[in-house]
Amino acid sequence: MPELAALDAALTARLREILPPAAFRDDTTPYTEELRGSYRGQAGLVVAPGSAQEVAQVLALANDARVPVVPYGGGTGLVAGQVMPEGPAPLVLSLERMTRIRQILPEENVITVDAGVPVEAIQQAAAEHDRLFPLSFGAQGTARIGGSLSTNAGGANVLRYGTTRELCLGLEVALPDGRVMNTLTRLRKDNTGYDLRDLMIGAEGTLGVITGAAMKLFARPTRRATALLVTPSPAAALKLLSLARVHAGEQITAFELISGMGLRFIEATLPDIRRPFDPAPEWMVLIEFGLFGEADAEALMEELFAAAFEAELVSDGIIAQSEAQADGLWQLREAIPEANRAIGAISSHDISLPLSALPEFIDEGRARLAEMGPYRLNCFGHLGDGNLHYNVFPPEGEARADHLAAKAPVMEMIHDLVAGYGGSFSAEHGVGRLKVADLERYGDPVKLELMRGIKRLFDPNGIMNPGAVLRAES
Amino acid sequence: MPELAALDAALTARLREILPPAAFRDDTTPYTEELRGSYRGQAGLVVAPGSAQEVAQVLALANDARVPVVPYGGGTGLVAGQVMPEGPAPLVLSLERMTRIRQILPEENVITVDAGVPVEAIQQAAAEHDRLFPLSFGAQGTARIGGSLSTNAGGANVLRYGTTRELCLGLEVALPDGRVMNTLTRLRKDNTGYDLRDLMIGAEGTLGVITGAAMKLFARPTRRATALLVTPSPAAALKLLSLARVHAGEQITAFELISGMGLRFIEATLPDIRRPFDPAPEWMVLIEFGLFGEADAEALMEELFAAAFEAELVSDGIIAQSEAQADGLWQLREAIPEANRAIGAISSHDISLPLSALPEFIDEGRARLAEMGPYRLNCFGHLGDGNLHYNVFPPEGEARADHLAAKAPVMEMIHDLVAGYGGSFSAEHGVGRLKVADLERYGDPVKLELMRGIKRLFDPNGIMNPGAVLRAES
Repeated sequence: MPELAALDAALTARLREILPPAAFRDDTTPYTEELRGSYRGQAGLVVAPGSAQEVAQVLALANDARVPVVPYGGGTGLVAGQVMPEGPAPLVLSLERMTRIRQILPEENVITVDAGVPVEAIQQAAAEHDRLFPLSFGAQGTARIGGSLSTNAGGANVLRYGTTRELCLGLEVALPDGRVMNTLTRLRKDNTGYDLRDLMIGAEGTLGVITGAAMKLFARPTRRATALLVTPSPAAALKLLSLARVHAGEQITAFELISGMGLRFIEATLPDIRRPFDPAPEWMVLIEFGLFGEADAEALMEELFAAAFEAELVSDGIIAQSEAQADGLWQLREAIPEANRAIGAISSHDISLPLSALPEFIDEGRARLAEMGPYRLNCFGHLGDGNLHYNVFPPEGEARADHLAAKAPVMEMIHDLVAGYGGSFSAEHGVGRLKVADLERYGDPVKLELMRGIKRLFDPNGIMNPGAVLRAES
Repeated sequence: MPELAALDAALTARLREILPPAAFRDDTTPYTEELRGSYRGQAGLVVAPGSAQEVAQVLALANDARVPVVPYGGGTGLVAGQVMPEGPAPLVLSLERMTRIRQILPEENVITVDAGVPVEAIQQAAAEHDRLFPLSFGAQGTARIGGSLSTNAGGANVLRYGTTRELCLGLEVALPDGRVMNTLTRLRKDNTGYDLRDLMIGAEGTLGVITGAAMKLFARPTRRATALLVTPSPAAALKLLSLARVHAGEQITAFELISGMGLRFIEATLPDIRRPFDPAPEWMVLIEFGLFGEADAEALMEELFAAAFEAELVSDGIIAQSEAQADGLWQLREAIPEANRAIGAISSHDISLPLSALPEFIDEGRARLAEMGPYRLNCFGHLGDGNLHYNVFPPEGEARADHLAAKAPVMEMIHDLVAGYGGSFSAEHGVGRLKVADLERYGDPVKLELMRGIKRLFDPNGIMNPGAVLRAES
C-alpha cells in the first residue's frame, strides 16, 4: 500500500478550484475535539462539500494525493471514529452543508435526506406529517444521519424498530475513486445482488462516504403507557419482558434496566430530578407501550402489572397517570448518563449479551469486579436488546483520577467475560479507534481477514478514515 | 482467473476419503431439475456433507481442483440459482443432511439451526415452544433455511416481520478456501466491524456456503382478524393501508392485493375453491391483523371497515367470522399461483415498486401491454411491501405455446417500465441465472463493479455457483 501524505498546499489549491468559498472552515479546532476528551484529532483542512458529486470529487483528489480523509458528521461518536490523532494531517470532510430533506412521502412512510441532516430534524419532519422516525438517542440534536448510519447507531427504540441499519431502505455513497454508487431506492423488497447497503452501514467511513439515504417512517402510536416497575433481579426482568410480549406483542417501545446505583448517583449529583421509591430498589425496569387507535394503553399496562405481580416478577411500581408523569420517568432514565459523567467512571462499556446469558453475566461480573477492588458499578440500559451500559466507578469519596491504573485491567476483565458469554464489546457505539485492539482480540479471525480484503478493495490507497475499525496498513 | 475443470475421478476419490458413504447420492437427476423446467442443470456428483467443517473441506478440495460447486438447499428457487446448465460438470453440494435444530431458546426468542433445516420445521419447532417463526411462503415444506437466507426469501409476512435477512441474527459460513467464518451470534446489537452477515445473505451461494444460522422468533399473536375487502383501485388500496396503520400500527400481518382476473382464473381452473363475490370485483385486498392479549381483533377490523367505507376506500367486504372462514380466504389467495400455472403464463414477473408509484405503474403497464396485444394480466401479491407478482397470459382460448415469441418483448417492456419508476426486477426471488442480464442492464454500474470485486475476493477461482448473480468470468 502506498504511503499516506499530509495535506499540502497543492491539494488545498485544487480543492479551492472545485469547491465554493462557503465550503471551507477557518476554525478547524472543533473538528479535532472528541466528546470524551480521550483523543485529540488533527485537521490539515476542513471542507464541507454541498453535494454527493462534490464529496466524490474531493475524495478523488485526496485519493490521487494519498491524503487521508476523515468523514465528519455531528462529531458525537463515542469511540473516536471521527478524530485521527496519528499519521499525516488529514482532510476532514464535514457533511454539515448537506442538510436537505430531499423528499418526504408520508403515504409511503419514507423520507429521503442528505447525509448531513441531524437526526432530530428528521424526527421533526416526520412529526409534521404525522409520522414517526424512531431513531432516538441522547445526541440526536447534533448527530447527523450519515454518521448514525456509518456507526449503525442504536438508542432507545431499537427493541421495537431496530437499529439505524433496519431503518434504512437505500443509500447514495461516494467512493474514494470519485465514483458515486447510486442505490438510493425506496423499495421494501429488492433482491438484486449483494447487499452493499449494509456493508456501508456500520463501516464508520472507512469504505466511502454516505451522502444520502432513504429512511423508513412509521405510523405514530396514538396511545402510550409508561411504567417504572421494581423487579427482584435481572432474571426476573427478562421473564417480565417475555410476559409483556404475551400481553403487548411487538408494541413494547422500550424496556430499560435501571439500577439502584443509578438512582443513588442521580441523588448525589442531580438532586433536582425527582426520584420515586426511597430507598432506591436494587433493580427497576422502565417499560413503555405504544398502541394505536382506541386501544387503552394504561389498562394494558395495569393488566401486565397485575400478572407480573402475581408471578412475583415485580414487587412495586409506578404507572404514569399523565404525559407529565411519563416524561418524568424518562427524565430519570436519561439523567443516568449525566450523573455518571458527574461521578466520573473509571471505565465505561457498551456491551451486549445473548439475553439468556445476561443474569449470569451480571452476577459473575459483579463478583469478579469485587475481587479487583471496592468499585461501584452502574449497570443500566437497553435490556430488551441485551445491551448494557456497564460502567465502573471509584469507591465512594474517591476520584477517577486515583484509579486510572485500574482502567485497563477492569476493561480487560469485563470484555473477556463478555466474550466468554458470547457477547459483544461494542453493542451500539461501533469500533472507531478506541476498540480496534478489542476487535483484533475478540473478532472472528476469518471475518477480520475478509474485512481487510474488503477495505483494500474499496479503498486501495487506504485514505478513508485510516486507523478506524481496522489498524492502518502500511 | 484460472479455467474451471469438470469434476473428475481424482476429486471424487478425495471426497470419498473425507466423507462417509452416507454423504453420496447415487441419483443425481433430482438435483438437475428446476421447478419451472426452463433450465436443466448438470451434476458430476452430488455430496451431502454432515457439518460445517465437512462443507469447508469439500469446498477446499473443489477449489484446489478448480471444480465448480453448486450449493443446493430445497431446490425450490425460481430463478435457476440451483442449477448450472453450462460449463464443466459441477459438484452439487446438498445441505440435506444438515437438519439439526442446534438450540431453541424461547425466552430469548432465538433458534439456532443447521442450514439444511426446512423452513416449515423451524416454524413447527417454534410453535412447540409457543413462539412464531414468521418466514412463510408456498414452498416452505421443501425449502431449507440456508437457501432461504441465500436468496433472502420473502413471502407472506414480510410486511410485519421483514424478509429472511431481517430475521437473521448470526451466520456460520464455509468459504471456498476451506475456512469457516464463525459469526453465529445471537446478539440483537453488535457493532463490531463490517456487516458480512448481510453480505452472505442474498449472495445465492456465490461467495460461500451458509452452514448454520441463528434466527429470530416472536411471540405468537393470540387473536387474528382476516378480511377480504373490495377496493375501487390500487390507489385506494394504498390509502387503505395507511388508514389500517392508524388503527393497527405494525400489527398488520398481511396486505395482499387480489385482482378480478385472479378470481376468474381460479373459477376456470380450480372450481372447487369457494369464491366470494359474483361477479368478481376488479380489485380486492386480503388483510390480516395479529393482536395480543385480550385485544378484540374482529372489532378492530370492523372499525377499520367502517372508517374505510366512510372514506370510500372500500365498497364491500367479508370479515371472517371463524378460523375456518379466515383459512378459506387464505386458500383463495394461495390458489392464485396454482391457477396461474394451470392457465400458463407467457411471462411472470416478481417486481417491486416504491409504494407511491404503484398505482401509476399498474395503469401504465396495463395500457402498454394492451398496445402489444390482447393479453390477460394477473397482477397480485404483497401490496404492502410494494411487491407485485405481475404475470401476463395469452388471450382467452389461446395457449402459451402460441405466444412464446411475445415473452422477451413483454418482459423487456415490463422491466423497463419498472426501472423507470425506480422499482426492482426481482423483489423476492433473487437473480440466479435467469436475471443475470437484467442485473447488468438495470443495476447501478458502480455497485456491479464492486460486486465483481467482492466475488473475486471471496472466491478467487470462481468455483462458487458460477454464472449465478454475476456472469462467470473467464
